[in-house]
Amino acid sequence: MSKPSIGFVGLGAMGFGMATHLVKEGYSVHGFDVFPASVERFAAAGGIPTSSLEESAREKDFYVCMVASAPQVQSVLFGEGGIVAALPSNATLLLCSTVPATYAQSVAAELVTLGRSDIKFIDAPVSGGALRAAAGTLSIMAGASDEALEKGRFLLQEMSDANKLYLVPGGIGAGSNMKMVHQVLAGIHILGASEAMGFAARLGLGAVATAEAIKGSEAWSWMHENRLQRMLDEDWNPGASALTIILKDVGIITTSARQSQFPTPLSSTAEQVYLSALLQGYGAMDDSSMVRQYFGEPIMKVSAQSEKDLQLVLDLMEITNLVAAAEAIAFARYLNVDLKQFFTLVSDAAGASRQFMTKGLEMIEGQIGGSETLDAATARLEKAVQKGRDLHCPLNLGNSALSVLYLAKKSGLGAEGSASVVKTFGN
Amino acid sequence: MSKPSIGFVGLGAMGFGMATHLVKEGYSVHGFDVFPASVERFAAAGGIPTSSLEESAREKDFYVCMVASAPQVQSVLFGEGGIVAALPSNATLLLCSTVPATYAQSVAAELVTLGRSDIKFIDAPVSGGALRAAAGTLSIMAGASDEALEKGRFLLQEMSDANKLYLVPGGIGAGSNMKMVHQVLAGIHILGASEAMGFAARLGLGAVATAEAIKGSEAWSWMHENRLQRMLDEDWNPGASALTIILKDVGIITTSARQSQFPTPLSSTAEQVYLSALLQGYGAMDDSSMVRQYFGEPIMKVSAQSEKDLQLVLDLMEITNLVAAAEAIAFARYLNVDLKQFFTLVSDAAGASRQFMTKGLEMIEGQIGGSETLDAATARLEKAVQKGRDLHCPLNLGNSALSVLYLAKKSGLGAEGSASVVKTFGN
Repeated sequence: MSKPSIGFVGLGAMGFGMATHLVKEGYSVHGFDVFPASVERFAAAGGIPTSSLEESAREKDFYVCMVASAPQVQSVLFGEGGIVAALPSNATLLLCSTVPATYAQSVAAELVTLGRSDIKFIDAPVSGGALRAAAGTLSIMAGASDEALEKGRFLLQEMSDANKLYLVPGGIGAGSNMKMVHQVLAGIHILGASEAMGFAARLGLGAVATAEAIKGSEAWSWMHENRLQRMLDEDWNPGASALTIILKDVGIITTSARQSQFPTPLSSTAEQVYLSALLQGYGAMDDSSMVRQYFGEPIMKVSAQSEKDLQLVLDLMEITNLVAAAEAIAFARYLNVDLKQFFTLVSDAAGASRQFMTKGLEMIEGQIGGSETLDAATARLEKAVQKGRDLHCPLNLGNSALSVLYLAKKSGLGAEGSASVVKTFGN
Repeated sequence: MSKPSIGFVGLGAMGFGMATHLVKEGYSVHGFDVFPASVERFAAAGGIPTSSLEESAREKDFYVCMVASAPQVQSVLFGEGGIVAALPSNATLLLCSTVPATYAQSVAAELVTLGRSDIKFIDAPVSGGALRAAAGTLSIMAGASDEALEKGRFLLQEMSDANKLYLVPGGIGAGSNMKMVHQVLAGIHILGASEAMGFAARLGLGAVATAEAIKGSEAWSWMHENRLQRMLDEDWNPGASALTIILKDVGIITTSARQSQFPTPLSSTAEQVYLSALLQGYGAMDDSSMVRQYFGEPIMKVSAQSEKDLQLVLDLMEITNLVAAAEAIAFARYLNVDLKQFFTLVSDAAGASRQFMTKGLEMIEGQIGGSETLDAATARLEKAVQKGRDLHCPLNLGNSALSVLYLAKKSGLGAEGSASVVKTFGN
């Protein structure tokens, strides 16, 4: 049986990789993008160029939407000459863009309103970056009806790693929620990597040695390891991962949190720093450029003067990551996200941190260990934050995490294990 | 009886005003400063110049110390050739610098250790700015033994407004604590004024009309009214009130809070923004320049396009000031500050706000009114914060206040009066 034709919109960094991977796997992929240059580049890579959304969707039983944001999705799906009107009966539509869960649900509702409930709609945001997109080894978090998932599964499998296709229970919106709570960790850890390295530079610690120490410690995060080289090289322009991208994802988090009136203090703190940097002109630059918010010079210029303060950097990062894990898990629980699946997914993805994988597991299992009390963890972070203050170094996340820990202490959790900070978030 | 000779160190903006006022009142004031130019200027204004700390202190029964920070105090009092060694027996020493309470207490202890418990030491920080310093109408918050207060009172009275000399119960440190909890409000409101005006500019609201509306509303703060003209004129360099000054005061707050493990999330948020601005080179500029952290152009360039969003600005500022009042009052209560005196002092000082004077009074009296629920206040702030996010406008304090309100809601306070947010701070 020959492979079906696939329509595809959104040939940006991620979408181009996904679409050309499908071409390599033998599919006829009919691609469209608002930028003609992207369509030409896609044609040069073996794709079939189209000149309109309508053309890309006509007679396609399978369609992948990978534009950048919910407003763009709304426009390409439902705008004049849009995809939905052109799709044939019973087509399968994969929405791979990162959007709020409530928006994905609104798409499903609008399909019904328009009399197009025949379309098998799958809410399937992805993660993993352009390289994994091109290799067909993305993480995909897919939620939909069983019928839709059955029809679309082969396509999800083509684009994802065998171990990283997560069929998320809960229908439309569940995939987006899973992606969102993952991004709570990503959004905090990206800034955290810069905050730790900037603090280290203020302390006079050499960047490479500090990074090595972080790598082997309880402070480790995937984001720190991933962003490190670009931070050291100041390889920011153009950004491999532009500030505006994580800012968009964090905006989905804080906006959704406000809709639920759920506290996400660390995500909110990170967002404010990102917005300040946007105002300073960093929008198109790589997000590892956030180190400039903490240290005014290239961190590679700092030659190791002393390593006696290294522990302060590790403590800052470790305890911040602990509170980040609490914020993400509490929010996931509030949204009825399957926590075991969440744990499995994060542990092998960009949101991973040593703290999430140890203390986060305690939070998820409700078995808070006694390895270190909340009071003791607080004291470690406190010392780092005070040193930052003495050096006039902003430590936005460290201070925000410390406020959460103090509030936890006020509510009587000081003598419990440090993972009990999750209880401060009220569930 | 002729007026006594007075020694004086620290002839900066405030100190110069205080010392020259005493000259005008007929005292022989022997002034010293580390900058010879300041001493010359003082001599030109009728003061008696001295060429060393020792000379300024020798045979002076009364001495006023008005240097900028605790490390400077330590140096001028106890360093080689310092003041304490030169003061005669039973001299009265007024420490008017803003320092941590624990530092003021350490001075008292060191006097005992050095065998100089004969010195009548008064912890007497001041507030009110250079103009009021020169007019002898400062606010002074003085704590000391009854004996010391009796001896030094005439001098405190000379420098303060008749209604603004606060004899603070609790001995050494009590005056500094009173000043510190006042500065919780000042430190938040200074940034809040910029945040509100920057947000208004992003909304396309004319600055003057917005300021007028704030002035007559529940959002009013003394700092907003005071900083407004300099913000409009961008009259920042040199700063009438340099960023580094409020940053030093906020540092005392957050450092003291850490020593008590007390949460001060809004002060901490303000501090981080101030530290970021310091890194951007704003240190010597007026603190009203913080508006640049929210809007990249002069706000006077914005011509009123619409006033429909004005309520969002008022809500942002009002609810932020409500949470600021809660933070200040909770911290004051924790430190055993006399809350009635605190209320009286703040109401007539730079930390004043409409919210402090209404909802703050409810908090102090433990009589939370039902005029608006915490849920309703939260909803108003939420709408403003969401709008800020939609406009990509940082709202550091607004977001921080909203996190506190969400945590208050999580602990079951949603249906109570909005002033019940004070209970989130744990006492």
